[in-house]
Amino acid sequence: MTDASALLTDLYQLTMLQAYFDQGMNETAVFEFFVRKLPEGRNFLLAAGLEQVLEYLETLRFTDEELAWLERCGRFHPRFVASLADLRFTGDVAAMPEGTVFFPSEPILRVTAPLREAQLIETRVINLLQFQTMVAAKAARVRLAATDGLLVDFGLRRAHGAEAGLLSARASYLAGFDGSSNVLAGMRWNIPVLGTMAHSFIQAHADETAAFEHFARSHPKANTLLIDTYDVETAARAVVPLAAKLAADGISVQAVRLDSGNLGEHARRVRAILDAGGLSQVSIFVSGSLDEYVVADLVATGAPINGFGVGTRMNTSADHPYLDCVYKMQEYAGMPRRKRSEGKETWPGRKQVFRQFEASGRMTGDILTVESDAQPGSPLLAPVMRAGRRLGPSPPLAELRQRGRTELARLPQALRQLSSTTAYAVTIAPALQALADAVDRRTRQATE
Amino acid sequence: MTDASALLTDLYQLTMLQAYFDQGMNETAVFEFFVRKLPEGRNFLLAAGLEQVLEYLETLRFTDEELAWLERCGRFHPRFVASLADLRFTGDVAAMPEGTVFFPSEPILRVTAPLREAQLIETRVINLLQFQTMVAAKAARVRLAATDGLLVDFGLRRAHGAEAGLLSARASYLAGFDGSSNVLAGMRWNIPVLGTMAHSFIQAHADETAAFEHFARSHPKANTLLIDTYDVETAARAVVPLAAKLAADGISVQAVRLDSGNLGEHARRVRAILDAGGLSQVSIFVSGSLDEYVVADLVATGAPINGFGVGTRMNTSADHPYLDCVYKMQEYAGMPRRKRSEGKETWPGRKQVFRQFEASGRMTGDILTVESDAQPGSPLLAPVMRAGRRLGPSPPLAELRQRGRTELARLPQALRQLSSTTAYAVTIAPALQALADAVDRRTRQATE
Repeated sequence: MTDASALLTDLYQLTMLQAYFDQGMNETAVFEFFVRKLPEGRNFLLAAGLEQVLEYLETLRFTDEELAWLERCGRFHPRFVASLADLRFTGDVAAMPEGTVFFPSEPILRVTAPLREAQLIETRVINLLQFQTMVAAKAARVRLAATDGLLVDFGLRRAHGAEAGLLSARASYLAGFDGSSNVLAGMRWNIPVLGTMAHSFIQAHADETAAFEHFARSHPKANTLLIDTYDVETAARAVVPLAAKLAADGISVQAVRLDSGNLGEHARRVRAILDAGGLSQVSIFVSGSLDEYVVADLVATGAPINGFGVGTRMNTSADHPYLDCVYKMQEYAGMPRRKRSEGKETWPGRKQVFRQFEASGRMTGDILTVESDAQPGSPLLAPVMRAGRRLGPSPPLAELRQRGRTELARLPQALRQLSSTTAYAVTIAPALQALADAVDRRTRQATE
Repeated sequence: MTDASALLTDLYQLTMLQAYFDQGMNETAVFEFFVRKLPEGRNFLLAAGLEQVLEYLETLRFTDEELAWLERCGRFHPRFVASLADLRFTGDVAAMPEGTVFFPSEPILRVTAPLREAQLIETRVINLLQFQTMVAAKAARVRLAATDGLLVDFGLRRAHGAEAGLLSARASYLAGFDGSSNVLAGMRWNIPVLGTMAHSFIQAHADETAAFEHFARSHPKANTLLIDTYDVETAARAVVPLAAKLAADGISVQAVRLDSGNLGEHARRVRAILDAGGLSQVSIFVSGSLDEYVVADLVATGAPINGFGVGTRMNTSADHPYLDCVYKMQEYAGMPRRKRSEGKETWPGRKQVFRQFEASGRMTGDILTVESDAQPGSPLLAPVMRAGRRLGPSPPLAELRQRGRTELARLPQALRQLSSTTAYAVTIAPALQALADAVDRRTRQATE
């Protein structure tokens, strides 16, 4: 599905592995992936990308070609390179299910594995989890803004490469979009594929109305006519007699699309033209530089719009195209560890998140603590892989999407707004604070 | 190299192709890729990604599995799906070489091909060209800011997926970076791979100095010690006696890395500690949320920094993570075409860009005109593919990087600044204006 090369990593993972090899250091390490802080304006995140992480871990291995290149590149000694030939991921993974709402400092993935395995995978694990999580969170905001309007991912062309296009189609569907224009994503994950026509289709014809007719005859059951290549209202007026002509042949025009100008205003005028022509069943679909703010404005002003094609700004998470996220060592050889770099301190040890709900089902607050410290509420991380093998088949994407929908419904009302609000309460349990203090005392003693 | 599926496209390309098939429309179409306007704050762009476009075009075909899925999905009729089996790209391509500076409205790629081929490839062509061009432009700004400091791409982990990580390593190297931490990019394109160590390496050891020593002994010729896991100055002071001990065994410490806090201030203190300890040859490398602005500040304040690891903000082009770019039909069946949607008008016909230079070699202005209208200066687009075959082997990436360097040196001084300045002059030649007017007249007649 995705690029599985073991060399899809930062060089330093391999230089560290050689040093570990030389020292015979390969005891059990525990790493956790978490986000340090929310991007400005975001109120929550949505876990996504676990499926691709598990695929990666299951298939991780160095090919002969890769090993030969590592030996040739001059940075590694032959005994170390030879030791990589049998490297497989043999560890355990616990994770929040995809579609789970989460907050800063909360691990969504924990890897427990021999040091060389747990370290090597860092780069790709972050690469997979940050991107889908970020896009899912952005897409969830668009879904909240659109209420129940049709939402289609249109972003493949301006996604950052092919994999970004595919994974953003997946993440946005998980977060509540209804489909994607990305055909390959449709084939891979059974995501509904949706689409209209391009301006070039109109331009290739000498006559706009002829273009509409050709398209509708070729797609009698699913057609959306793009009406803004020249003049929107002229085109809308041309649709009326055309629809009557097509109806005589049993073909119904389904929708029109607007892709430029003042979308709300155009939609109102087009709606009036279509309704006056007896085409009240023809829906209006809009696209062009949409994001959650533009969609919310269109909805708030009551623009007669039935669906939105949302691309670039959603699947690049354009206002915040990265997360401040890390995959950090929390324990090695049975000893909890903690990084204390300025502004980048981490909570040590194997952790769990417990979530409380009120009677209505809305989430009210989380407790972050050490794994062994049971707290009231539901634990969010569960084992998904043991000794390199999945504990069960992955849920279908449609099921994960249902979870995402349920989770969004459980958000406190304030967090469902587009503007940032009081942060959701994530409480550090006394047991975790005590562990952090103990690790600090130990580290101070070692460095003094 | 990159994902080559013919289904890596928007659904509407295929629905349009069915309509063209039904109408028997498959005459020669001309499409051009260009950027509509510069992102705020950018003064120029740098063409990149052509190599991946040509690879895609050379290998484009539908697999049996893909054809079977298209038939199953219920949107297409069997005769049309069958017609896709023999689809190959048989057209011509002209392009600006990678590493060429360019400006809005200037096509960097022109495709001339039978309509179905030229249309189908739209999505992936934009996907490949926009991303690398955007990253190359961003990386070029970092190069200009860093003057001659060492620049290393550290961004794989927060790139948008694997392909984004690989292509941003390539694009940043093309734009003047010295290397990448991305091992697979190193293997694929012979980009120098560079790296240090992670905080986890320090944390895995009970003692920070022991970690430094283990790493240096394992990498006697290339080692950079990460000194900010706990306290930077304590760590720097520990490097001094360690370096002496290692020197006795013929091992030299090469560099230290800072990844947190006030980098300029830390660098000054660390430089003083190292110099006082006789380690003036040990260089200082910094990383952490760097971009062209932070690098320029560090350079301007004279911070004793020898190299920069630049990741996330460069390879997501974080302040502007997309370009307003398009691949537009400019001609079909011998007739120039023009889109006139509000705010999205295009220049019709097959175009060429001519660039003027002053005696010093600096570029002074461009003329955009129709292909047949020779103008003073150098034409920037040249044929690279004919009838689906490349006209020659691709230049090695190192050669393209040299072109990028030359091009940046030719930029007018004002455009080399980080802040935005008076736009570079791109003049529309009378011949192109006349063609646009003629197309408008023809379209008006057709719609009246």
